[in-house]
Amino acid sequence: MSDTTRGYLRIATEEAFAPPELITLYRDMLDRGIASHGDPGFQSLMGFYTGHRSERTEFVFDRLQDLGAARIADMDATGIDHQVISLTSPGTQILGTADAVAMATLANDQLAEAVRRHPDRFSGLTAIAPQDPEHAAKEIERGHRELGLKGVIINSHTQGEYLDDPKFWAIFEAAEALDTPVYLHPNTPSPRMIGPLLDAGLDGAIYGFGVETGMHLLRIITAGVFDRFPRLKMVVGHLGEALPFWLYRLDYMHGASVRAGRYPFMKPLERNVSDYLRENVWVTTSGMPWAPAIMFCREVLGPERVLYAMDYPYQYAPDEVTAQDNLPLSSADLKVFYQTTAEELFHL
Amino acid sequence: MSDTTRGYLRIATEEAFAPPELITLYRDMLDRGIASHGDPGFQSLMGFYTGHRSERTEFVFDRLQDLGAARIADMDATGIDHQVISLTSPGTQILGTADAVAMATLANDQLAEAVRRHPDRFSGLTAIAPQDPEHAAKEIERGHRELGLKGVIINSHTQGEYLDDPKFWAIFEAAEALDTPVYLHPNTPSPRMIGPLLDAGLDGAIYGFGVETGMHLLRIITAGVFDRFPRLKMVVGHLGEALPFWLYRLDYMHGASVRAGRYPFMKPLERNVSDYLRENVWVTTSGMPWAPAIMFCREVLGPERVLYAMDYPYQYAPDEVTAQDNLPLSSADLKVFYQTTAEELFHL
Repeated sequence: MSDTTRGYLRIATEEAFAPPELITLYRDMLDRGIASHGDPGFQSLMGFYTGHRSERTEFVFDRLQDLGAARIADMDATGIDHQVISLTSPGTQILGTADAVAMATLANDQLAEAVRRHPDRFSGLTAIAPQDPEHAAKEIERGHRELGLKGVIINSHTQGEYLDDPKFWAIFEAAEALDTPVYLHPNTPSPRMIGPLLDAGLDGAIYGFGVETGMHLLRIITAGVFDRFPRLKMVVGHLGEALPFWLYRLDYMHGASVRAGRYPFMKPLERNVSDYLRENVWVTTSGMPWAPAIMFCREVLGPERVLYAMDYPYQYAPDEVTAQDNLPLSSADLKVFYQTTAEELFHL
Repeated sequence: MSDTTRGYLRIATEEAFAPPELITLYRDMLDRGIASHGDPGFQSLMGFYTGHRSERTEFVFDRLQDLGAARIADMDATGIDHQVISLTSPGTQILGTADAVAMATLANDQLAEAVRRHPDRFSGLTAIAPQDPEHAAKEIERGHRELGLKGVIINSHTQGEYLDDPKFWAIFEAAEALDTPVYLHPNTPSPRMIGPLLDAGLDGAIYGFGVETGMHLLRIITAGVFDRFPRLKMVVGHLGEALPFWLYRLDYMHGASVRAGRYPFMKPLERNVSDYLRENVWVTTSGMPWAPAIMFCREVLGPERVLYAMDYPYQYAPDEVTAQDNLPLSSADLKVFYQTTAEELFHL
């Protein structure tokens, strides 16, 4: 990509799309009622988006399904040069295995076609069906080698299951082998955690997403995934789902817990919990366009670990771009933040 | 209290004790098995402390039950001038109502007696049984007027119930009327949230405490408790359970959720979520003796909102005191941090 007069390109790295076929599937599932999918978080989130007609929900559904002129016009209006696009949450992960595999294939084909039409404006991540880890590994390879996609998107839990379970590790093995990062995107909390969050309306973006996804990343770290796959790269949004805030405590308490033998399955790790967060994980600013938290994360994780995201079309807010342009950073630092970290991480 | 040569007193504000009678009750409940109490978090936490004999668990149990010479010797060894002491988590909240009321009374009498013996070294908070809110309100008044206690301790959920339920609001009414702060101390996550945290050994101090208690405070705020009781003061540990990190997002997403009418019960508030966190809430450094996070909280909440705690005897660590002495703060700022904020908040 070429440079601009402002001195940096703005590359947004957590931007969503959805094939019309997926929206239809979601509507069908919701029409058939909660018993058919067993996920109160899905009901709360997608039930809201499909069930409430408002300016906001109309805009989100319209733009999710657009990989052309309307999306590019919105990018131009907010000064976004390039989007790294991925299948919206919960993606395939709410579906039965056969549907999930078919939907991942379809979504990747649609996204790759859009990238071919607009290579300067779009890159894409590979959607997978974690329900079938071996197929998922093959799809990661197809996305990488045949479709030109630049990473992998996973929307936290898959029907209550988490990626620290070794049955999923073929996914990590493929991603590490291809040096293609895995973006661990939020989902609503899984059924055995959502109860008191849902009761209070805190299950979604306000708090539940962060709890679910922060816990998921911690599970991955403490299960030793990065000891087994030391070159694996993961990306999380919301500036790391508050784990940077807990950095000191995670090291202290993980050490204390391992030494005490409190959980027989919790084994010593080769590095500190904070080391994995600093060396294997990158964080994006999706939904967190707030200077104090961005600067805090740059301080405790390192400036080359924090990169820009908008979360289009959910958080399409021009003033947030301005806020991040006005971070107390030099032009060179802004280029690291908006452009070069994304280019290097995703091999754009 | 008088001053010292170092220019400030160190007042630790989240320090725990337990009557021997409570430990006996806990052991009994655990011996009778999980079915008798229905709280997997209690089983995980107190089952560990009562079931694993180690140097750490011996020390914790010994010191929890000491309100005299051993505690004072530990304070002297770490340079703690004064402790604000409260009944250890989960306190009375795991007990049946009659036992809980009796235990709160007993604990408050024991603590008040210790404070009378060592007024320079100890202050205390009033334990209550939220299971009986009307009695709890009376006990807050007894603690304040008759026993000389300086606030109220509540250990997050009470058998899965949260204080945003108006049935508990007699507690807040009493605390506001007496201008006595309510310390919302962590507990393990409630049964409908703990599942995937417990599976991975993340239910306790490493992560679950923060999730449970952060959610609880958010429930209290979004339910409008501080609109109903605008002079109510609350205190939370762990530097605010990561809510300061989420400050921008909480305002943005609460506003969006209310405007969209996503949850019929989620009503507009008189102030922003962040305003309540800055104006009605104080945060302590218990378990978070880490300069970047302390300085971040001082920046986003205000320097007079962040005060010192050790979490004795659970986190009895002399090097943490040194770390906080070495914060990049002037002697005057350290006095605000270690001494005067606590004196003003708790009316010491």
